[in-house]
Amino acid sequence: MNSRRNFFKFAGIAGGALAASAVSKVALAALPEITTQTSPDTMPPLVPGNGRPYNPVVTLNGWTLPWRMKNGVKEFHLVAEPVVREMAPGMKAHLWGYNGQSPGPTIEVVEGDHVRIFVTNRLPEHTSVHWHGQRVPNGMDGVSGLTQPAIQPGKTFVYEFVARRPGTFMYHPHADEMTQMAMGMMGSWITHPKNKHPLIADVDRDFVFLLNAYDVEPGASRPNIMTMTEFNLWSWNSRVFPGIDTLNVRKNDRVRIRVGNLTMTNHPIHLHGHEFTVTGTDGGAIPKTARWPEVTTDIGVGQMRQIEFIADEEGDWALHCHKSHHTMNAMGHSVPSMIGVDHKDVADKINRLIPAYMTMGDKGMADMGMMEMPLPENTLPMMTGEGPFGGVEMGGMFSVLKVRKDQKPGDYKDPGWYVHPKGTAAYEYQGDAAGLGEPVRPAAADHAGMHHHHAPASAEKEIEVQVVKPKGHAGH
Amino acid sequence: MNSRRNFFKFAGIAGGALAASAVSKVALAALPEITTQTSPDTMPPLVPGNGRPYNPVVTLNGWTLPWRMKNGVKEFHLVAEPVVREMAPGMKAHLWGYNGQSPGPTIEVVEGDHVRIFVTNRLPEHTSVHWHGQRVPNGMDGVSGLTQPAIQPGKTFVYEFVARRPGTFMYHPHADEMTQMAMGMMGSWITHPKNKHPLIADVDRDFVFLLNAYDVEPGASRPNIMTMTEFNLWSWNSRVFPGIDTLNVRKNDRVRIRVGNLTMTNHPIHLHGHEFTVTGTDGGAIPKTARWPEVTTDIGVGQMRQIEFIADEEGDWALHCHKSHHTMNAMGHSVPSMIGVDHKDVADKINRLIPAYMTMGDKGMADMGMMEMPLPENTLPMMTGEGPFGGVEMGGMFSVLKVRKDQKPGDYKDPGWYVHPKGTAAYEYQGDAAGLGEPVRPAAADHAGMHHHHAPASAEKEIEVQVVKPKGHAGH
Amino acid sequence: MNSRRNFFKFAGIAGGALAASAVSKVALAALPEITTQTSPDTMPPLVPGNGRPYNPVVTLNGWTLPWRMKNGVKEFHLVAEPVVREMAPGMKAHLWGYNGQSPGPTIEVVEGDHVRIFVTNRLPEHTSVHWHGQRVPNGMDGVSGLTQPAIQPGKTFVYEFVARRPGTFMYHPHADEMTQMAMGMMGSWITHPKNKHPLIADVDRDFVFLLNAYDVEPGASRPNIMTMTEFNLWSWNSRVFPGIDTLNVRKNDRVRIRVGNLTMTNHPIHLHGHEFTVTGTDGGAIPKTARWPEVTTDIGVGQMRQIEFIADEEGDWALHCHKSHHTMNAMGHSVPSMIGVDHKDVADKINRLIPAYMTMGDKGMADMGMMEMPLPENTLPMMTGEGPFGGVEMGGMFSVLKVRKDQKPGDYKDPGWYVHPKGTAAYEYQGDAAGLGEPVRPAAADHAGMHHHHAPASAEKEIEVQVVKPKGHAGH
Repeated sequence: MNSRRNFFKFAGIAGGALAASAVSKVALAALPEITTQTSPDTMPPLVPGNGRPYNPVVTLNGWTLPWRMKNGVKEFHLVAEPVVREMAPGMKAHLWGYNGQSPGPTIEVVEGDHVRIFVTNRLPEHTSVHWHGQRVPNGMDGVSGLTQPAIQPGKTFVYEFVARRPGTFMYHPHADEMTQMAMGMMGSWITHPKNKHPLIADVDRDFVFLLNAYDVEPGASRPNIMTMTEFNLWSWNSRVFPGIDTLNVRKNDRVRIRVGNLTMTNHPIHLHGHEFTVTGTDGGAIPKTARWPEVTTDIGVGQMRQIEFIADEEGDWALHCHKSHHTMNAMGHSVPSMIGVDHKDVADKINRLIPAYMTMGDKGMADMGMMEMPLPENTLPMMTGEGPFGGVEMGGMFSVLKVRKDQKPGDYKDPGWYVHPKGTAAYEYQGDAAGLGEPVRPAAADHAGMHHHHAPASAEKEIEVQVVKPKGHAGH
Repeated sequence: MNSRRNFFKFAGIAGGALAASAVSKVALAALPEITTQTSPDTMPPLVPGNGRPYNPVVTLNGWTLPWRMKNGVKEFHLVAEPVVREMAPGMKAHLWGYNGQSPGPTIEVVEGDHVRIFVTNRLPEHTSVHWHGQRVPNGMDGVSGLTQPAIQPGKTFVYEFVARRPGTFMYHPHADEMTQMAMGMMGSWITHPKNKHPLIADVDRDFVFLLNAYDVEPGASRPNIMTMTEFNLWSWNSRVFPGIDTLNVRKNDRVRIRVGNLTMTNHPIHLHGHEFTVTGTDGGAIPKTARWPEVTTDIGVGQMRQIEFIADEEGDWALHCHKSHHTMNAMGHSVPSMIGVDHKDVADKINRLIPAYMTMGDKGMADMGMMEMPLPENTLPMMTGEGPFGGVEMGGMFSVLKVRKDQKPGDYKDPGWYVHPKGTAAYEYQGDAAGLGEPVRPAAADHAGMHHHHAPASAEKEIEVQVVKPKGHAGH
Repeated sequence: MNSRRNFFKFAGIAGGALAASAVSKVALAALPEITTQTSPDTMPPLVPGNGRPYNPVVTLNGWTLPWRMKNGVKEFHLVAEPVVREMAPGMKAHLWGYNGQSPGPTIEVVEGDHVRIFVTNRLPEHTSVHWHGQRVPNGMDGVSGLTQPAIQPGKTFVYEFVARRPGTFMYHPHADEMTQMAMGMMGSWITHPKNKHPLIADVDRDFVFLLNAYDVEPGASRPNIMTMTEFNLWSWNSRVFPGIDTLNVRKNDRVRIRVGNLTMTNHPIHLHGHEFTVTGTDGGAIPKTARWPEVTTDIGVGQMRQIEFIADEEGDWALHCHKSHHTMNAMGHSVPSMIGVDHKDVADKINRLIPAYMTMGDKGMADMGMMEMPLPENTLPMMTGEGPFGGVEMGGMFSVLKVRKDQKPGDYKDPGWYVHPKGTAAYEYQGDAAGLGEPVRPAAADHAGMHHHHAPASAEKEIEVQVVKPKGHAGH
């Protein structure tokens, strides 16, 4: 329990909505303490301090909600409230979430646990929580109007059920649902199996994140909640590249990644360098005879997919949504195309209309990544992120799986950029070596004449990409 | 046969198009009688009066087409024609369909049946019928231009084949296809297995419906047939919530739901409270070793999915498309967002431009569901439907699976709202009971202080949601 | 080797970009010769002249890249460059591709082959090549910035790896990715199994193509590269119906079709008349116990799907994307709907704004296919393609699987239209035959009174649809 003592912040009684509540301070005081988290860093997994043990997950750029045990019941306290989320360094969005952040904290329990969740509503409108995928008594299903009255602002509701089925689930409102999910209200839920399960593998690394999407005008900070298809910030756990942490594992680790989709369109999640198997859905573990090998799993809306693989290829492997407009940030969605057009005049006209906007190059978009033109404040460039060999020209739903020989078990820190062994990297052709029939390989490095940053130690300074320093729960 | 005597309506010779036809009255008189159905209610399954017996399906807000036997051939008569479809109480759309309705009637036959279908075209343009998924002689495949000439207005064509493969299929035009499907022309087709089939389970309840979509401007009644992505009425069998009937089953029933998608995007169909298995597609039954457990099945366009589960959890369980903008009606697609904005002035401006439109609240959308502002005529509110605990705030592709202990086999009537056993529903936190370590539970009801309608008998009067009274085929 | 002698065109040193390159003519001279292909016809499969034998694929409206063997290494030379692609007769697009065409040539190798690929960049901006789905050393993965520096204009890079895993893959840039794929840069890659593989069947016919999409304004020839959802040319290998070749097979052939999706949305590929099985993905062969029967496979972005079936039904079977707006060409995406409206005045107004545009009929769209109104130059009609029975009213992602008893092994020529055996085609109802209880069947033909073109020999002249005459690699 002491492992989470310090990073908890008892929020106390705050917020105008709550002040108007009928619940007295005395009543609230008996509730589990409210823990919040505002840092966007990936928190190390929360090792359970009581109850049945399990191998905890790592929530990408997120955290796990602590609980208290009360007469054998695991009690959690979720607070629905407005939050400010840094979506990437340089851009903050005003969202709605839980306990200080969007998405809300991951909830982890063990199959068979008796769970009680207090949900306090500090939003300006009513809400509810639906425990997507779980077997619960009908009255605990969280569909406002149908299975319960909505939770009014300032009120606290109690949900109580047994976590009957092991698996990966989500939670989100089922009240003014489109608005509240467009504002960022969602979280992950893991129910670990009680005993060894024939279809649930023991893994060395276990990650979880949710796919979400926002429509925030360049220069603005509030999402347009009526957007249905034309989102411009495609995010993982409300973060966009280069603000998404890397997934760092040891060579030959068995890795599980659990991904849920709460956007409004499919996301084909693609991993480089490895095949994986889809081993489970929010409906349960997939029988071994039914599993498909994939390099891209297309995740429908309202679906969870668990993928598993052995990370047997060292290197820095892209992991991203394969819809290419989902790997751009907001700017990329606002700029007209000019390929093959002399755009001097057009650019002038647009700039007069929309100052601070920039136009596409006439040779493609890559020059955009290098441009130094002024952007609207609180706006991310369209294609960004620096890698060891220059601009990665990505945004949105993009991250990197880092596989290293020496990544220690339990170490989730970014190991820096991969150093390619000699002869294993693409190189510039420099002519044939005196008719030997083999191209000349670059002598000094695997890549010719480029800004290749090998040193992982100094990587944080030299490059602009966010390198996450997991701060850890105090006491670790 | 007498079971369908009364509800059939012999349409005779009608319609300008038909009058211009070369087919004489004598010739038409020899065709199977034309049966039509204009009620949007769910008709009870059509128990076969001849031929091989089978367990008939329930078509959600639809019906099954009767046939006649002629020299061992099952003869059906489809009439393609303009129809008026009530999409939900308060909103009627001018569509194209078959035999008085969109979608057309379900066709049910048995594997091995020799089938002859007469198709009469009363539309203002040519058409054809493609029997999606079925094995037919190439000339019966219904692709106008490629496998047959189009059926001109006023003409009747004959299709004839043996229903070779048991399964779930669709029928729809393959002539000016985008227009005709955007106007509502489609229907379901079930071929029941002749003998016990190792991969086709005997089920207690068997439902079928098609996913379709329309773009009807608020206040209008005709779909825009050129819409490609921005539909505003997402429907099941051309009905939207709260106009979609509930699926009513007995606890522990084995339930099959067959869903086909004829929109232009994927629909992730999500069931609450139960896991299901996808047991078949329009390509056939899925081997048992290959089946996946799901709570959300993502149905691609032009795909059928059969899902099966044991309804072992009592209650009212939401069943819906998980794309949240597909659970809104037309109004929700026309209203700008104002979260965090004082929108008095903006609303004034918009209202001057588009009288009768309303603007979003600045606190979310939930207040929209309660608004009493005037809507354009023939327009459904964006988020609507009343449940036992207040507004459900849904529209479009949403319905409820009602699981009851006492729902008799064959009884498809709505049993009213579920009464939650004491202690099984979420409740408002009222403080701790004198330090007992347990929250105070509401004494009288499971939900505190809310308009909870328990009485199923009187539910139809008290609430506005449509409660379907299956009228049945006369004679039942 | 002599089989490809003549159709290779040594491009030499050309293009302004290359002229500025640091690579000398001497250096380039040692590279594998650059072969290009500008004909949009389907080339017969390239029978391997050296290395391990395999059963080559047919690339729809495409070709396979020849290689040279050098010290046991298979060397290929890809040239990224601007190309002109005829998307269908009457419409040419200015795209970016490889070796004269978009998509680039298919690369075929055998499991275990040591492969070296030279990539020369003749584009106006930098690029890279990612070998989607393959196991390669991290430095060969082609993600510019992350695993290599981008290939600057005029430069040539060398990729080298062992084709470790048999399967179907893709290649495409991972540098300014959205632009470069929107411009047409992509190709297929097949790695044939080295030995008999338990999950990879020997097939009689093996086809491959990629799904891609463009946004080209009617009358224009350059794609809008910033389009994200509203594409208007949905293509297979950068061709649209009626410009897509038919897939021609012999009755009872085992057929494999490999399809990859590099658009920005799902494509449900639907085959008429047969069920198929999804046997593999870009992640590998699917275990037999896990395979699903389908008539429509929904292919996510960045996914490959291999489907297999026995072509045991003779005839002309439609094969198409089931999203109906993907079977229209550009015109269909620019025309307002007028169903039920007298549109004389509106049409006048639109025509004043956008000369040469046409409006929808008020009876549906089918009359559009027959219209003879002037179109903007370089623009395809919206619904087009003539079949043996009139207009097919399709565009975009549509083709035909032709199954014939007498299609010789290895013969990929179009056999003309199918001749329906008597009594196997839908026909117009002409009244009952003197009370015999059977409809009168047309005496002379299976279809009554229509322009039925039976003669396959003369089909090419009589109808306008493109009939491909595979020209073959010289020497065949």
